[in-house]
Amino acid sequence: MEAEFLEWLRSACTNTHPAVTFGIGDDAAVLSPTGSGGLIVTSDMLMDGTDFHVAEHAPERIGRKAVAVNLSDIAAMGAAPSAIFVSVALPRPGALALAKALYRGILKICRDFDVALAGGDTNTWDGPLVISVTACGRPHPKGVLPRSGARPGDAIVVTGEFGGSLLGRHFDFTPRVREVAALWDGFELHAATDVSDGLTLDLHHLATASGCGFEIQAKDVPVSPAAHEQARQDGRSPLEHALADCEDFELILAVPASEIDNLPKTIHGVPLTRIGSFLPDGRTVIVDRDGCVKPCLPAGYQH
Amino acid sequence: MEAEFLEWLRSACTNTHPAVTFGIGDDAAVLSPTGSGGLIVTSDMLMDGTDFHVAEHAPERIGRKAVAVNLSDIAAMGAAPSAIFVSVALPRPGALALAKALYRGILKICRDFDVALAGGDTNTWDGPLVISVTACGRPHPKGVLPRSGARPGDAIVVTGEFGGSLLGRHFDFTPRVREVAALWDGFELHAATDVSDGLTLDLHHLATASGCGFEIQAKDVPVSPAAHEQARQDGRSPLEHALADCEDFELILAVPASEIDNLPKTIHGVPLTRIGSFLPDGRTVIVDRDGCVKPCLPAGYQH
Repeated sequence: MEAEFLEWLRSACTNTHPAVTFGIGDDAAVLSPTGSGGLIVTSDMLMDGTDFHVAEHAPERIGRKAVAVNLSDIAAMGAAPSAIFVSVALPRPGALALAKALYRGILKICRDFDVALAGGDTNTWDGPLVISVTACGRPHPKGVLPRSGARPGDAIVVTGEFGGSLLGRHFDFTPRVREVAALWDGFELHAATDVSDGLTLDLHHLATASGCGFEIQAKDVPVSPAAHEQARQDGRSPLEHALADCEDFELILAVPASEIDNLPKTIHGVPLTRIGSFLPDGRTVIVDRDGCVKPCLPAGYQH
Repeated sequence: MEAEFLEWLRSACTNTHPAVTFGIGDDAAVLSPTGSGGLIVTSDMLMDGTDFHVAEHAPERIGRKAVAVNLSDIAAMGAAPSAIFVSVALPRPGALALAKALYRGILKICRDFDVALAGGDTNTWDGPLVISVTACGRPHPKGVLPRSGARPGDAIVVTGEFGGSLLGRHFDFTPRVREVAALWDGFELHAATDVSDGLTLDLHHLATASGCGFEIQAKDVPVSPAAHEQARQDGRSPLEHALADCEDFELILAVPASEIDNLPKTIHGVPLTRIGSFLPDGRTVIVDRDGCVKPCLPAGYQH
């Protein structure tokens, strides 16, 4: 329902406010309250039963995840997170103990990334746990890294490994805040997004926003050990998991061809892998291990 | 549970981040990402069964309220709202129709106050409706109006009328954005807060934050027609309703004594009423219609 709703919202919303660029459907919005650099803002809501199971998962991990997914969106804009606002609806029985445990996880990741917990809203109710986080960040001195900036010929570079995140990494992943800052300090980049819905689905989003197609090499996609583990459990291939599993929270970067040979193999210990190139036409294809070119459909979590 | 939790959070949270002033428990936070004026940010979460009843109330009114309570917090800082971020958890049956109706209310109030809908997160789930809004605003050129700025001798001035809001005004109130802007353009003000929990309770919060006491005159408290209506229904007095009912979303202002005679009787058609003064000691008292001085306890919605 989300796609249909967002389409309706775009038509209903005459969002041409001078204070805001980007907006609905992007990783984050850019506010320019003073005209001097602006502020990056993003919001994500996590719900019991969808993003976590409060009966199964430690609240510290749940609180951490609620912040981390927002920091990942800030990183996807090339920005540095500075403050978060956390609103919670806590189930009434045991609310205080749950709140403290959640906030231990929240405050820990705030310390790790030098982010201020600046406010929010704490409620109790008869429903399940809901956590809504809004994160604010400072853009990189070079500006914001848009989703729409990829150009034909740019290399598709990803951080980390893909697939099997739901075995645990979706709680404990490291948002690529430091990595994107170091990369953008030292290199030219054209576009970025984070992988929340699935590698090929988010790559489609970036390519569509940029008016490009893409070609990726199956042999070059970094497949995580967890993708192999999930493949053993469900019989799908590890590559399928890497291409389609949601919540990897790695970055997809569009790197100019002239810059690709300068890029290091790792950044802050995280692998950087070139998996393909953006194309001038709208084709979206994957080259399999036998050199056979196949259509690459957007696979992943469809809202 | 909220008071106990906030106390714990204040001790657990070493919130001395250079990018943020104010924070937990204030109307809003002030971010200074660029050192040039900063940005005011506030978050509020509304839940079905607590802040509205989705089975009884039109979704357009619910959406409007979710935004309006945040605009009221921005106004309480003397600031002008510029953008909002809206995250929703929608009950699955009829989610699309509900979302559209909610956003019609949201977009209407955005247009009325020249605020951009800049992003958010749309989800469906098996739980009840939850709406979380984060609003951003630009501080007034004179700076932010803190909760802690009242000084002994300042007049206590309120906008509008009080009591009985739950009969309907809690949906349809006008956040005092234009009023506070006009007042601060033309007059010196020391402090402000909005009345969400109850007139005397929020006045206590402001006085405590400012290190003052206060004396209010019962005869001067503006009592709304709805407070009289509720008094007829439940036998409590209209004044009791005006002093203790929640969700009036009017402003309490601390106005320097030197400025009080310059203040108009209305601003943009909204009455301005002096109801008392801040005191140098910690006494918090109310003078009844017979001239008898009584303790004024913090009455209102205790979280």
